[in-house]
Amino acid sequence: MARAWHLMSRPNGMPTMNNFALKELAQPTLGEGMVRVKNSFLSVDPYMRGRMNDVKSYVPPFQIDAPMEGGAVGEVVESHDLGFAIGDKVVHMLGWRDESVVPAAALNKLPELGVPPQDFLGNLGLTGGTAYFGLFDAAQAKEGDTLFVSAAAGAVGSAVVQIAKARGMTVIGSAGGAEKCAFVKSLGADAVIDYKSGNLVKQLGEAAPKGIDVYFDNVGGEHLDAAFAHARKDARFAICGMIDSYNGGEPAQFRFIMRVIGMRIRVQGFIFTDYLAQMADFYRDMGGWIASGQVKSRDTIVEGLEKTPEAFLGLFTGANTGKMLVRL
Amino acid sequence: MARAWHLMSRPNGMPTMNNFALKELAQPTLGEGMVRVKNSFLSVDPYMRGRMNDVKSYVPPFQIDAPMEGGAVGEVVESHDLGFAIGDKVVHMLGWRDESVVPAAALNKLPELGVPPQDFLGNLGLTGGTAYFGLFDAAQAKEGDTLFVSAAAGAVGSAVVQIAKARGMTVIGSAGGAEKCAFVKSLGADAVIDYKSGNLVKQLGEAAPKGIDVYFDNVGGEHLDAAFAHARKDARFAICGMIDSYNGGEPAQFRFIMRVIGMRIRVQGFIFTDYLAQMADFYRDMGGWIASGQVKSRDTIVEGLEKTPEAFLGLFTGANTGKMLVRL
Repeated sequence: MARAWHLMSRPNGMPTMNNFALKELAQPTLGEGMVRVKNSFLSVDPYMRGRMNDVKSYVPPFQIDAPMEGGAVGEVVESHDLGFAIGDKVVHMLGWRDESVVPAAALNKLPELGVPPQDFLGNLGLTGGTAYFGLFDAAQAKEGDTLFVSAAAGAVGSAVVQIAKARGMTVIGSAGGAEKCAFVKSLGADAVIDYKSGNLVKQLGEAAPKGIDVYFDNVGGEHLDAAFAHARKDARFAICGMIDSYNGGEPAQFRFIMRVIGMRIRVQGFIFTDYLAQMADFYRDMGGWIASGQVKSRDTIVEGLEKTPEAFLGLFTGANTGKMLVRL
Repeated sequence: MARAWHLMSRPNGMPTMNNFALKELAQPTLGEGMVRVKNSFLSVDPYMRGRMNDVKSYVPPFQIDAPMEGGAVGEVVESHDLGFAIGDKVVHMLGWRDESVVPAAALNKLPELGVPPQDFLGNLGLTGGTAYFGLFDAAQAKEGDTLFVSAAAGAVGSAVVQIAKARGMTVIGSAGGAEKCAFVKSLGADAVIDYKSGNLVKQLGEAAPKGIDVYFDNVGGEHLDAAFAHARKDARFAICGMIDSYNGGEPAQFRFIMRVIGMRIRVQGFIFTDYLAQMADFYRDMGGWIASGQVKSRDTIVEGLEKTPEAFLGLFTGANTGKMLVRL
């Protein structure tokens, strides 16, 4: 019998284990066009926190006492669709469960790029794609730019660091603690800021004495304010996430936001799914960087479906380096 | 003997009369290429507050015990340049004084557009140009958009309201108090919000139940946060000024800034002087709207050079409706 994590109540602030319950999931006989997938890896991502609130957003909220959703890779075990055969490796969005029944239209075969399947949840999936389109479309980043990226040890941030280095930028990353900072440095970052070790505005000023051209924001709050403080003329900010604010708390304060005017800063919010029509570009470039070793994957793997909420909660306490995954 | 207002000390927070002194100004014999102008109108503008701080910005800071500068129109009374003759009506940036000695290269003859000369400090000058380029370049505003503009009774704001109506937008303006709101309504705004009369987020939600496509920011702070709260997908914000923050006080807090991501909001800071090469477009369009009566000028005029700092200080207490000018 398949099981799926259900959202049982909406978190107020930081979610806890009490918001979730693992329940048996009735597995229907497959209708026409439906495919059954045995999942091997599940993705947990910070954006899922937003779907736990009952507010209109870019993705609809999770429903109470219904299965959660999210990225997953696995293998087809039963197919009522001519496009999929048993044994096909696939990626889909009905995760948080061990077995998924997915309409063929919502299922994608993994391109043959010679990488482990779980990479399609990371550098070749949502997080790598977010880094790629955020950098090159939202922020219009280009060779020679000085780039600052927050949460640089995270899944999106570590992809940003490596892609930006592959494209000839100077990269400053922030992370929390010596171990993560060492990891960011190992990815090729020119400078690393430990945001737990002192004032961000001061540290960024020392790391980028001539200022920054691009800021890739995963964090919001003080990181964003430090980027305002050190933006050069015509700087571009890609706003990918604001994990500092996902669980409530004090509203962000900005002491340097007025520099938007003098420096003609452009701030652009974006969402990966707007770029699905351009995935071929992404697979070509990212596949190339992975093949050449310029982009490497680093996963933090939690074992077992039972641990899925724990893996998710770890995203907000810095438990992951690189991509957080659940292996089934 | 000519006189000029000097900055005697840098204000800490809100400026006071004590920061300024009116002093006699030695009037040199004119060198080659120099022109003497008897000024008839002086401009005071919020951006001048920034130049009173000793910080690197898009214009250099005013120097202590040196004459202030700013927009001025007047008439040539002596010329050592072949390009200018006595009696020419001109506009230049050496204001805050009754008589200016200006290099010909920094002097512009007023185009023949059949308007009073002081309009070249307002709707045909810095404030109208700021409205025009902010709307059409920074915010990419277009027919059919729903636009929100703060400080809509001010010089820039009142131009934004009228230009946006001339281009077929739905316009919501904010202003402080019943009298200014009535003025904004008289300019053609579809809805007016009195920011002194209640919660901005709530009021903007009522005025724009379907949200806003464009926000033209003159104020920052709560106004900007309300715009984040009600932005539609792909909204564009032109950040022109943040008068709420010019004189210090608490840093701005943003409760709704995270909507930048979900709504893919673009925030663009801009400065009028970046567009000087496109002034011909501006004179053509703005001249046309003025000739057709679609854009009207409303000035708040203070009489006499002695009153210049008072006029300037009035910008921060809402003393002006439309453009604040000093008549000499």
